[in-house]
Amino acid sequence: MSRIAYVNGRYVPLREAEVSIQDRGFQFGDGVYEVCEIRDRQIIDEDRHLARLARSLGALRIVWPVEEAALRRILREVVALNRVRDGLIYLQITRGVARRDFAFPAEAPKASLVVTAKGTNPAINAAHAAAGVKVITVAETRWAHPHIKSLQLLPSVLAKQAAREAGAFEAWFVDADGFVTEGASSNAWIVTADGAIVTRHADETILRGVTRTTLLDAVRGQGLCFEERPFTPSEAYGAKEAFNSSATTIAMPVVEIDGRPIGDGAPGPLVKALRAAFHTLAQRS
Amino acid sequence: MSRIAYVNGRYVPLREAEVSIQDRGFQFGDGVYEVCEIRDRQIIDEDRHLARLARSLGALRIVWPVEEAALRRILREVVALNRVRDGLIYLQITRGVARRDFAFPAEAPKASLVVTAKGTNPAINAAHAAAGVKVITVAETRWAHPHIKSLQLLPSVLAKQAAREAGAFEAWFVDADGFVTEGASSNAWIVTADGAIVTRHADETILRGVTRTTLLDAVRGQGLCFEERPFTPSEAYGAKEAFNSSATTIAMPVVEIDGRPIGDGAPGPLVKALRAAFHTLAQRS
Repeated sequence: MSRIAYVNGRYVPLREAEVSIQDRGFQFGDGVYEVCEIRDRQIIDEDRHLARLARSLGALRIVWPVEEAALRRILREVVALNRVRDGLIYLQITRGVARRDFAFPAEAPKASLVVTAKGTNPAINAAHAAAGVKVITVAETRWAHPHIKSLQLLPSVLAKQAAREAGAFEAWFVDADGFVTEGASSNAWIVTADGAIVTRHADETILRGVTRTTLLDAVRGQGLCFEERPFTPSEAYGAKEAFNSSATTIAMPVVEIDGRPIGDGAPGPLVKALRAAFHTLAQRS
Repeated sequence: MSRIAYVNGRYVPLREAEVSIQDRGFQFGDGVYEVCEIRDRQIIDEDRHLARLARSLGALRIVWPVEEAALRRILREVVALNRVRDGLIYLQITRGVARRDFAFPAEAPKASLVVTAKGTNPAINAAHAAAGVKVITVAETRWAHPHIKSLQLLPSVLAKQAAREAGAFEAWFVDADGFVTEGASSNAWIVTADGAIVTRHADETILRGVTRTTLLDAVRGQGLCFEERPFTPSEAYGAKEAFNSSATTIAMPVVEIDGRPIGDGAPGPLVKALRAAFHTLAQRS
């Protein structure tokens, strides 16, 4: 079956899904996006994703292209039309189409809205999680506001490509002070020698991951010790466990960083427990 | 007359000019661009723009969508089809269309190529140059590689918007060390009290402007004293003259920075001389 996309009011086959070359998303990266997991045909943590979307749009002063309730209906329709049981839904909103000029158009155009969905094979993610994945560290090169989930993604593209070429699954950015900020498309976590779960505090240098937030609920629910603070690659090399979190991968065990095995080189018990607990805590639409 | 755009092999009316929602330019800002002046139906400094385009594409490992000679023919055709006598030509190349994934597609898609042209009214630029323009300074927020002319332009969008809301024409970014890097869409210049023309050296923190390069030819040709080095807003406040350079504005006198008048508050003699000399030095296609 050909896939169906929603584009500015119409449901169209993906191969015909197009936007203007004057869309400010295409010319300036002037837009935001969200990726949500679909599980058993339900959208996971939809409320938190839409709350973050509202924050991203607000930060860039982009007006919602449709009411939030209408967006929720569109998300459901795209999942249904594509008959996705397990997979991902992707939504992108840009400032819209205007004659090219850096500043916001004097008369705000209608924001562009694109939604797609695709099935994924849960067995692939499960296999990665069972084996654990490798991470490399790279210099932080992103703009000053990664807390906005914007389309300024070229640094993440280049970091992911560097990871792939190094035989790794993800790249962690390291800032000028020597601390890990986050992964190219995930938040970064470690478990210290004394069992504390550590992830960077959510300032403007990282995206406040929805999966990160739900995992922190799990951490609290299980009475585990945790600290929101920066950590260095050196501390990570010596950690008992490490993992990434994202809507795409949930909690993904990291077994090697920059060629150094983490813990005993196999997925640790804490990340396995958190991964197992995630879907008991996450909200289903 | 409706305007005509070139999009991936076809010349189409601008309102029908579209790209896939899976174009990596739209989803990741994974692409580069150039803007050239058109004057008397000729493309100004085309060789230097194409040389920079080659550097930008090389830095991102994007393969030219067409041979350079073919691109030159397309540029001419777009100028001719739009009957532009004086104006701007815009070209954008992205990594192409692929299933959404951060890393480069395993099989490189054909890069996307978009070219548009539009007439501009030289009298508007001339009026700005005669009166001089205002500049504000803003914190540098861009990614680490502004020397690549990429689509990572949201920081420039926000800076230009801040300038507009402050009643200014341009915003100059100031880095963490307190030095001006460049304008949101221009290079930044000052003339010191002892008559030296100063603009930042072209490292990875700024775009090596084509107009900047040609103006440096003019500076050398006129035997003027110049220094390629960083300067602070404070030094700029006390400068005899200040100006911006870009293909869109050539050398544009700055008469006020952060509300402080520069020199006697009117366009200075050096920038006027450089502006007058520019088109005698720039290459015509």
